[in-house]
Amino acid sequence: MKDMSPLEELRHSCSHVLATAILRLFPETQLDIGPPTENGFYYDIDLDKKLDASDLEAIEAEMKKVIKENQKFTRIECSREEAVAKIKEIGQERYKLGRLDDIPEGEAISFYQNGDFIDLCAGSHVGYTKKIKAYKLLSIAGAYHRGDEKNKQLQRIYGTAFASKEELADYLERLEQAKARDHRKLGKELKLFHIDEAVGAGMVLWTPNGAVIRQELQNFIAEELRMADYDQVFTPHIGKLGLYRTSGHFPYYKDSQFPPIVEPGTVDRLAQEGCSCAELSNQLDSGEIDGYLLKPMNCPMHIKVFDSQPHSYRDLPVRLAEFGTVYRWEQSGELNGMTRVRGFTQDDAHLFCTEDQIGQEIKGCLDLVKLVFNTLGMSDYRVRIGLRDPDSTKYVGDAAKWDKAEAALREAAKTLGVDFVEEPGEAAFYGPKIDFVVKDVIGREWQLGTVQVDYNLPERFDLNYIGADNEKHRPVMIHRAPFGSMERFCGVLIEHFAGNFPIWLAPEQVRILPMNDDLVPQAREIEKLLKAAKIRVTVDDIADKLGAKIRKCHVDKVPTFLVLGRQEAEQGLVKVNSRTNPSLEGLKKPEEFMGELLQNIANKTLPEPKEDK
Amino acid sequence: MKDMSPLEELRHSCSHVLATAILRLFPETQLDIGPPTENGFYYDIDLDKKLDASDLEAIEAEMKKVIKENQKFTRIECSREEAVAKIKEIGQERYKLGRLDDIPEGEAISFYQNGDFIDLCAGSHVGYTKKIKAYKLLSIAGAYHRGDEKNKQLQRIYGTAFASKEELADYLERLEQAKARDHRKLGKELKLFHIDEAVGAGMVLWTPNGAVIRQELQNFIAEELRMADYDQVFTPHIGKLGLYRTSGHFPYYKDSQFPPIVEPGTVDRLAQEGCSCAELSNQLDSGEIDGYLLKPMNCPMHIKVFDSQPHSYRDLPVRLAEFGTVYRWEQSGELNGMTRVRGFTQDDAHLFCTEDQIGQEIKGCLDLVKLVFNTLGMSDYRVRIGLRDPDSTKYVGDAAKWDKAEAALREAAKTLGVDFVEEPGEAAFYGPKIDFVVKDVIGREWQLGTVQVDYNLPERFDLNYIGADNEKHRPVMIHRAPFGSMERFCGVLIEHFAGNFPIWLAPEQVRILPMNDDLVPQAREIEKLLKAAKIRVTVDDIADKLGAKIRKCHVDKVPTFLVLGRQEAEQGLVKVNSRTNPSLEGLKKPEEFMGELLQNIANKTLPEPKEDK
Repeated sequence: MKDMSPLEELRHSCSHVLATAILRLFPETQLDIGPPTENGFYYDIDLDKKLDASDLEAIEAEMKKVIKENQKFTRIECSREEAVAKIKEIGQERYKLGRLDDIPEGEAISFYQNGDFIDLCAGSHVGYTKKIKAYKLLSIAGAYHRGDEKNKQLQRIYGTAFASKEELADYLERLEQAKARDHRKLGKELKLFHIDEAVGAGMVLWTPNGAVIRQELQNFIAEELRMADYDQVFTPHIGKLGLYRTSGHFPYYKDSQFPPIVEPGTVDRLAQEGCSCAELSNQLDSGEIDGYLLKPMNCPMHIKVFDSQPHSYRDLPVRLAEFGTVYRWEQSGELNGMTRVRGFTQDDAHLFCTEDQIGQEIKGCLDLVKLVFNTLGMSDYRVRIGLRDPDSTKYVGDAAKWDKAEAALREAAKTLGVDFVEEPGEAAFYGPKIDFVVKDVIGREWQLGTVQVDYNLPERFDLNYIGADNEKHRPVMIHRAPFGSMERFCGVLIEHFAGNFPIWLAPEQVRILPMNDDLVPQAREIEKLLKAAKIRVTVDDIADKLGAKIRKCHVDKVPTFLVLGRQEAEQGLVKVNSRTNPSLEGLKKPEEFMGELLQNIANKTLPEPKEDK
Repeated sequence: MKDMSPLEELRHSCSHVLATAILRLFPETQLDIGPPTENGFYYDIDLDKKLDASDLEAIEAEMKKVIKENQKFTRIECSREEAVAKIKEIGQERYKLGRLDDIPEGEAISFYQNGDFIDLCAGSHVGYTKKIKAYKLLSIAGAYHRGDEKNKQLQRIYGTAFASKEELADYLERLEQAKARDHRKLGKELKLFHIDEAVGAGMVLWTPNGAVIRQELQNFIAEELRMADYDQVFTPHIGKLGLYRTSGHFPYYKDSQFPPIVEPGTVDRLAQEGCSCAELSNQLDSGEIDGYLLKPMNCPMHIKVFDSQPHSYRDLPVRLAEFGTVYRWEQSGELNGMTRVRGFTQDDAHLFCTEDQIGQEIKGCLDLVKLVFNTLGMSDYRVRIGLRDPDSTKYVGDAAKWDKAEAALREAAKTLGVDFVEEPGEAAFYGPKIDFVVKDVIGREWQLGTVQVDYNLPERFDLNYIGADNEKHRPVMIHRAPFGSMERFCGVLIEHFAGNFPIWLAPEQVRILPMNDDLVPQAREIEKLLKAAKIRVTVDDIADKLGAKIRKCHVDKVPTFLVLGRQEAEQGLVKVNSRTNPSLEGLKKPEEFMGELLQNIANKTLPEPKEDK
């Protein structure tokens, strides 16, 4: 916690003020840690009483007093023995002794004191508590000590602080916006997806409305891939452990995977042999027991597809694409709606090419990623190139190949026409990469599309093609996924559009509102017309006032609705309203509207910028 | 083995003649069993020497002698003790003593003797060996004793016999045809799919060509479902064990499932506690340990989607569809290419409706199944209705409901305009069903599309909707899958079409054959034109003779190929050849051909009947 920025210092000091206030109100509290974060700070505390919103208010009021007292922050350095004694003296043994143990031998040990409050802390801090002028406690959540589910769950109090009241107000406003756009909230309101404890935490059930969006996105990508000469494949969701031993995914990454599925009868056989669970575990790791792994990655499967045929240089590049669902184990505390899950579908592809083709293939991948983001109105992104650390020897593949691949990435990035930064040391050990960091409408950044060169897997799987020289050569692999994960991307999209999707993505594109019961048959005729053109359309045939029907269109965020009154009906017209694209509005013939709508859909027209009604 | 038909008697006698011949040539052989089968007979033998084709010839020659000797078949009844003595006397203890134990107390024990050969056998047999006039040994395969992989693998010799030489010749001809159509052979030749031991037996990797066929079939179904007001969903491939305990799929069917995935850390925790594998197994079965099951069925997931919202009678029917991949454990000896696998994708749907809607929904399902089969030229099918056994009490749901559902199935079946049979006792315990048995071009029957009424799962998951009376009601579920499994159906389709798919399904629809290198650019122009219209087209730009290029079109079973010679090129024409649809042939402008081809594709035109070139 050294070398803090002034803002971090401010926030960190605020977390000490928070702890000071807590101990005044709840002296029995055992403190764990209270670092600054990207957007504020928190303090993890162990307290039997479950804190609620009113406690938060009381704590904030107490913080105000502490700040008003303008306590000075003082640093106290001491030896390890003195530190142990001091921790015992202040009665904070439960977690602080462990935190003290974390400090490596030879490193300075320090406490910071403000008023009566003393905390084991490396610093740094502001001079006096009065420096804290704009702060706010935000929420309470559960958090396991050291993030480990085996440990006790503590209460984490989140707060934030800014240099000025204006900045704080701005931030709180953005927080409010983010809350209104929260994909978990909108996902429920718009019936986009469902997560069910009975199925499992972090497992997304795409309910009909969300499935429409996913399918449309998949169709969009699939058509781009067809034009770019990709081949689609379908592969299983489990593979033998040996496959993932060869790829290196098991047991190396086993902590982030679902445990293996042993073959039927294995546990019974071991049970008969009187084996212990420890032996089972060891035999799985060592490979003595065979089993299957729920696939954490699609690459080994695509490699097997590539390798199912001999290849000549004339066949390359081979581009294999799949919407492949993979499963990874995330700690339950990390799970979040669709954006952090345990099962997700990658819009995955693996390109197998020659050394010389890397540049052109990377460029193709980047063009696709760019097209995807632009189509969805996410044109505010930055590009990072992860290069190798020139001083390290951890990398697979020789230096000349790396130089070539890195130059290819740089050249390809230049053609994008956007700024990019080169980050030495950010490459994977198996190859350099490019990724896109997309900024959403409220300024949050999301790491999305990635393009990754790989020298490692072709080696591990001994992939070959026959070159023009009639000799065996090793192909290079490129991994790429523009969306990354359909689940995460859709979560981001929901927040990006605040649920007001472009019409081509909207689950319900058109709703027809007959103003009287006797107009329902005519509404049904229009519905039939639109449905035959593959437009997703419904009729609101419930006997209700027009105002109520229109309000329901807004609640359901239906982009376009047609009002059918007696006068319109007699003239064979409808009154078109659009929440997203006012240029579609007007009194017109259904066929005319249909033509315009189909054009809007074919063009993947974005919502016209305006406030959400 | 009693009450055999004359043909079964003949075949069974032939298996005894086979065993007689084997013991003459390989006296050390231990015999297991030799029953008649649907299309012939086999005998399982235990012999260290691995038999090959030349041995089969020698055995067949010896059988000829045995038949010529015109040995009489004599039945010998005896007590259990005498039977044990006799088995020992003939030196066939290894398997026959166990087979003797299988005969229940009180049942007759008999041997049949022909010449010196004596075999434990219930009969019946023909009178003399000369009655066997038309027979043939076909193949040797491995088969586990009693079909259990834990037992020794024996050699199974397959053969067949018919009443006349003509019938035998017919059968062998059909066998040859089936071999030429074998989807495993064509699958490899046409690069449709790949099964890789490294991924796992029974796991299908859909390589690009096969993936095209699957995707086209899925698009076809998806469009029909859109028009029939189905909603698509996507659900995970694993679910918590509890979900499948509720549905009844676990642990009841656990022998046909992949074993559960325990939560990470569980085995380590149990290992630390010193638990044995037996305890692990027990705790999983009892539910003390939580875990996940690779989904063997999609239904519980769709139920959770349905149940994620409250429903009114006005919402019903709710029809949820998914191409859902499920995993089931099949014994390795049962696996067969794509038609018997361990992971497969169902074109699944679940309909949730009121009692009164069953009839109309069943009819909708049957119409869809019928459309699917007719579109694929599989119009030779029969329909079976599985009804409850009126004397049994094993069924869920009251009699009145069953009567209503059975009547609805019967009424719906009538509208199909094909014969159907009612099969009492063939219903599942949870509801009556209809299935389609489709006959392929060489007369083999495949049980495909199924429609199944279900009273059980809505009960187990306590599903409800609010009726017009404002009261809670239980919906009825209908399971249905026209293809059943995409893998199995594609396997059948490959054999049905012998790889000569209708153009809309063909992985490569058109190949352009420029006769000279300098015509390649013009060929590329035509390729571009067709590709823009979403036609799957390639150019054979390898410098080779036209004859060789055309032969390659036949080998690759490309339905349509365009010859581009200098004369055609100058006139702006192409010479269209079609292996499947001669009506497309002729000298024409590329645009004209394109129009005709697009029409053929849109109509899903079947190949015009003719011999495979």
